[in-house]
Amino acid sequence: MAEKKKVEQITSMDVDFAQWYTDVVRKAELTDYTSVKGCMVIKPYGYAIWELIQRQLDDRFKEAGVENVYLPMFIPESLLQKEKDHVEGFAPEVAWVTKGGLSELPEKICVRPTSETLFCDFYSKEVESYRDLPKVYNQWCSVVRWEKETRPFLRSREFLWQEGHTVHATAEDAEARTVQMLNIYADFCEEVLAMPVIKGRKTEKEKFAGAEATYTIEALMHDGKGLQSGTSHNFGDGFAKAFGIQYQDKDNKLQYVHQTSWGVSTRLIGGIIMVHGDDNGLVLPPKVAPVQVMLVPIQQAKEGVLDKTNELLAELKKDFRVKADTTDKSPGYKFAEQEMRGIPLRVEIGPRDIAAGQAVICRRDNGEKETVAFTELSKRIAELLDDIQKSLYEKAKAHRDANTRVAKNWDEFTDIINNKQGFIKAMWCGDQDCEIDIKEETGATTRCMPFEQENLGDVCVHCGKPAKKMVYFGRAY
Amino acid sequence: MAEKKKVEQITSMDVDFAQWYTDVVRKAELTDYTSVKGCMVIKPYGYAIWELIQRQLDDRFKEAGVENVYLPMFIPESLLQKEKDHVEGFAPEVAWVTKGGLSELPEKICVRPTSETLFCDFYSKEVESYRDLPKVYNQWCSVVRWEKETRPFLRSREFLWQEGHTVHATAEDAEARTVQMLNIYADFCEEVLAMPVIKGRKTEKEKFAGAEATYTIEALMHDGKGLQSGTSHNFGDGFAKAFGIQYQDKDNKLQYVHQTSWGVSTRLIGGIIMVHGDDNGLVLPPKVAPVQVMLVPIQQAKEGVLDKTNELLAELKKDFRVKADTTDKSPGYKFAEQEMRGIPLRVEIGPRDIAAGQAVICRRDNGEKETVAFTELSKRIAELLDDIQKSLYEKAKAHRDANTRVAKNWDEFTDIINNKQGFIKAMWCGDQDCEIDIKEETGATTRCMPFEQENLGDVCVHCGKPAKKMVYFGRAY
Repeated sequence: MAEKKKVEQITSMDVDFAQWYTDVVRKAELTDYTSVKGCMVIKPYGYAIWELIQRQLDDRFKEAGVENVYLPMFIPESLLQKEKDHVEGFAPEVAWVTKGGLSELPEKICVRPTSETLFCDFYSKEVESYRDLPKVYNQWCSVVRWEKETRPFLRSREFLWQEGHTVHATAEDAEARTVQMLNIYADFCEEVLAMPVIKGRKTEKEKFAGAEATYTIEALMHDGKGLQSGTSHNFGDGFAKAFGIQYQDKDNKLQYVHQTSWGVSTRLIGGIIMVHGDDNGLVLPPKVAPVQVMLVPIQQAKEGVLDKTNELLAELKKDFRVKADTTDKSPGYKFAEQEMRGIPLRVEIGPRDIAAGQAVICRRDNGEKETVAFTELSKRIAELLDDIQKSLYEKAKAHRDANTRVAKNWDEFTDIINNKQGFIKAMWCGDQDCEIDIKEETGATTRCMPFEQENLGDVCVHCGKPAKKMVYFGRAY
Repeated sequence: MAEKKKVEQITSMDVDFAQWYTDVVRKAELTDYTSVKGCMVIKPYGYAIWELIQRQLDDRFKEAGVENVYLPMFIPESLLQKEKDHVEGFAPEVAWVTKGGLSELPEKICVRPTSETLFCDFYSKEVESYRDLPKVYNQWCSVVRWEKETRPFLRSREFLWQEGHTVHATAEDAEARTVQMLNIYADFCEEVLAMPVIKGRKTEKEKFAGAEATYTIEALMHDGKGLQSGTSHNFGDGFAKAFGIQYQDKDNKLQYVHQTSWGVSTRLIGGIIMVHGDDNGLVLPPKVAPVQVMLVPIQQAKEGVLDKTNELLAELKKDFRVKADTTDKSPGYKFAEQEMRGIPLRVEIGPRDIAAGQAVICRRDNGEKETVAFTELSKRIAELLDDIQKSLYEKAKAHRDANTRVAKNWDEFTDIINNKQGFIKAMWCGDQDCEIDIKEETGATTRCMPFEQENLGDVCVHCGKPAKKMVYFGRAY
């Protein structure tokens, strides 16, 4: 019974992308629903992907001088309210604790939707002198935002993330750290998740509540929608003034610190699914694949087949994340399952091949098969994993480039957004009302003002006023 | 200014152990207070210890077939109430969320104090057949218990931990897993934290709310109080019946699963502090020391001293967690700081020693110094770290053994508990009223009924009725 469910056909992505996504998440056993509305279970296979993301990103953080800490999950109402823009942005979507044990709390506290206010409170006591700066702290934790519509990984009431919070002596240092962390995110997405991203700045309308500037990395999903995949904020000294975070400089003068924060979340897993997946299920980049190689014995009842499988398993384990499927399911079922779970390589080990001293390797990304001598297996697997990692990136980049179009005027813009989707590059006047009009008329939002600006014309694609910035537009998750 | 604070004298542990503990936690920069009552900040140095605990314990879990998952932090009231004993145990100390965003919730939800109910709800949908069993899942997360009195690491309203939850086909499998995880905890405490523990079973009074049996590891702190350091629970099929977790066995009959759960928390850091610390501050076992070796240049303004320090740093980094203190603080200050933070080894590098091709190594645990040639440094550091790890365990074990006493009668019992503290081994009738009387009269609780039973006599140390079990008693955190 349990067998049948897994290999059921999933919805084709071209028929119904949203349903395809839901099917993949469920059938690859990444998450499950719970009795807690809007919250998901992350199952072992999904969590193993998150652990690989965490480990590799955390290594990059540590190289960049980041130190991990842990702050409380609760924020007293009075603390949340200290910075005006911030509380306006978050108060409508927080969960409030009003009762502790058997008694009403004197002040209600919310479950953190993000921890700027807690870090500010902490830094206001922690920082005294220029010698204490910078502080570059990060925490891995879960946060809560009381969303109405939820989807696994993309939007849920509770999600896992990391949030970095830093304080610096000067505006220049804060700006440098904001950009440094954005670059770490971008490199990580491209090198580890094989997901190309556009780096740029958010408009005033789209920036984080309380930030002076928000930088973002934006990726394009298979269905032509954008995914904001990570953000890095420069707060200037706004929070510092609201929370009184001051330090004594070298001349014994009191100065306000300059702050940043930056985060990525389990949303990245949603990105991996929607960038690389296909109609057979998940396709995982080898660097975040919990299982990189699945060994599948063929005619495993025959003498020597299981022995050889186990021998290869022991050998390959030294270099790869590898498993052998020695259950009594049929090879066809095992293949379908390995494909559904996006395992990059399958190695088929049958009696005839064993006699010939070889096995068949099959790639998940393009289905190509090749026969490899046992003596060459480990070397060839390493090469193939490397190649898959690169190919997935190239394929995703080609898809994004093919689906990034220039709109010189409003007719072109509406034609693209209604008939083709994808990213639209266009000139914009910089006026927020115009930005709102574009969104209301088309559903497309400003994804970012890319660091790499191009001059596509002199006037705004929508209102015709003088253009200030080249912007990426798109519908987004 | 910041300099002075750190080297201030801390309270002597013999004068006021509780104050000594608070001083060490603060001055070694492990935690700090927050504006959130009863919750702590875990600062970088404290969190780095937790990361080392996590990483090494998680490796042992994975070897034992444990898979990590993540379940929601919220439990609807109706779910918490499904198992009668469990809700009675936890309802009085949970935090209740009653409002999400701007509206009242239709049903209040609590922040998880522990996740048995969530895992049961999950398993009731997940498990169908004997083929699905066992499931051996764990999560690393934070939990909330609305405590009145709090102390860093030992008792706080929110704390970090791991909680494993498993389901099995048979009672035997569940019992075996319960004991297996207790053994993993015990080995981890002894081999990694250098903290000897007594393994045993909790009495009915002290067992976990809803469990059939609770096993525990109990450690003795420097002040003679016990610390429950980890627990492993066998639930039998009680929760399974309350939540309807059934599977179809090989004969197609519906059977209830048998369950376990087990956890350790940041409390272990409190244990490390109170087992190994001394009047100069923290003493860390090398395996959980974020910095194992601190290089301290002497007369660092002299030519070649900083160069040599940096050269050694680069070399030693390959094998150890090592840092160099090249700030402009005095060597004496640097020594005191390294000692306060419990860094196992200090290497002093001065001009005269450099000329002689050698450095001075000083051990944190016993203050012994030795001169070592640069060419032998790495080898000697490895030996010394190994020796410190073993010595700390031996010292802690000698302390525990010296402070574990047999009480044959009630006079001996009260004499020990009032004048000597430590663990008391005594015979007990098994009657809960007698156990309550002992606690009320002396403040001592049953720590556990050790697996290694001894026959110390035929009658209960308190009431004189026939004895059933040898028990460890003690006052405890």
